[in-house]
Amino acid sequence: MIKNKLEQLGLELPSSSVPGGNYTSFHIRGSIAYVAIQFPIRSGEYLYQGRLGQDLDTEDGYQAMQLCALNVLAQINQYTTVNQIEGLNHIDAYYQSTESWDEAPLIVNGASDLFVNVLGDKGIHTRSIVGVHTLPRGFSVGLSASLTLRKPGRGWVWL
Amino acid sequence: MIKNKLEQLGLELPSSSVPGGNYTSFHIRGSIAYVAIQFPIRSGEYLYQGRLGQDLDTEDGYQAMQLCALNVLAQINQYTTVNQIEGLNHIDAYYQSTESWDEAPLIVNGASDLFVNVLGDKGIHTRSIVGVHTLPRGFSVGLSASLTLRKPGRGWVWL
Amino acid sequence: MIKNKLEQLGLELPSSSVPGGNYTSFHIRGSIAYVAIQFPIRSGEYLYQGRLGQDLDTEDGYQAMQLCALNVLAQINQYTTVNQIEGLNHIDAYYQSTESWDEAPLIVNGASDLFVNVLGDKGIHTRSIVGVHTLPRGFSVGLSASLTLRKPGRGWVWL
Repeated sequence: MIKNKLEQLGLELPSSSVPGGNYTSFHIRGSIAYVAIQFPIRSGEYLYQGRLGQDLDTEDGYQAMQLCALNVLAQINQYTTVNQIEGLNHIDAYYQSTESWDEAPLIVNGASDLFVNVLGDKGIHTRSIVGVHTLPRGFSVGLSASLTLRKPGRGWVWL
Repeated sequence: MIKNKLEQLGLELPSSSVPGGNYTSFHIRGSIAYVAIQFPIRSGEYLYQGRLGQDLDTEDGYQAMQLCALNVLAQINQYTTVNQIEGLNHIDAYYQSTESWDEAPLIVNGASDLFVNVLGDKGIHTRSIVGVHTLPRGFSVGLSASLTLRKPGRGWVWL
Repeated sequence: MIKNKLEQLGLELPSSSVPGGNYTSFHIRGSIAYVAIQFPIRSGEYLYQGRLGQDLDTEDGYQAMQLCALNVLAQINQYTTVNQIEGLNHIDAYYQSTESWDEAPLIVNGASDLFVNVLGDKGIHTRSIVGVHTLPRGFSVGLSASLTLRKPGRGWVWL
């Protein structure tokens, strides 16, 4: 379903990345699934490295954030299905830029737009945006996310 | 109740801010409510912009963090009530400062004090404090939060 | 159990640190426990201050992250038991470095390795790594975490 929706949008699901350390990229605890920080990597290739406002412009940043979000979707698609999720919770968006560059909310829409376009109401999320000093491998942006899963079985009964 | 408590403290609840992108400022998934990063904005006016230790001092920073926390309370007040919440979970406090300025824990108390003073035990929280390179619009500080909601009724059963 | 496992690894559990502000270092809301950001402090002594790639090297960073993780375990050990936890959720690892230093994933393994070695499957986690501008007290690294608690019995009924 994620793949079909992406196809309609003219986008392709990247292969999900492999952890670069002793952690996991996706796991479930209770009814929440956690996704490790995703970077703008496509099929193992590091893209969108550098500093926004210097090496990269706002359109690059939008594409870079969209690619991070595609990598989040690739993790979701590998380990669960859209039917099983209640929806996205919160995303933390990180970027590295020059001190004067101030288009961060626009580029983070690259991720936000994708989630809402692909997942509909389940893609609604809150977000934080912070401009960091450096990111691993000189990536211009990074994105972490968590989502809530549907209750197994018929649901819960509230007494 | 939030408004009354703030009045006693000589403070006013700001109007809740409108998202500056394709996301929501507050939403609920399962029993957790998420609040998007809040900045020191009052009635649409951008305040406390600049770098701590250069453009702003520690007292400014305390006020700026308090204003972020007031904006978190404004979101809570708009979408739920104090009776419905179990309490605050964790807050992430971000600040931009010179390299040598080191009063961050003091300014973040501007948010922590407010939550505890207004919400009592429900305001108890864990926190992270990190000094970032830049924040959108040159804001000196930003604050995100999540909270746990009360189970409706007396409890719950998993089927 | 945490202490025994650490002893086998030749490590010692530090005394848990006291909050440096109006917040708590550990608390539980619903079935999730939150741990405030932990720094490389041992028995009240501030260690591993400075900037990676300038004042500290990668091996220092690994040790510093391990010490942060030991402080997370000290909080867990003080307020709950391994039997009561389902497992770690997500960790946020922060570091301050020069602009060109790029060994962050290696140093964060100092925390990730420890969690997996001490807690086994319960130590599996997702993680984010971001290079910040400054951290309080000039600490080179900081680490926050959350964990999921076990449901009592096979499901739950809150009464």
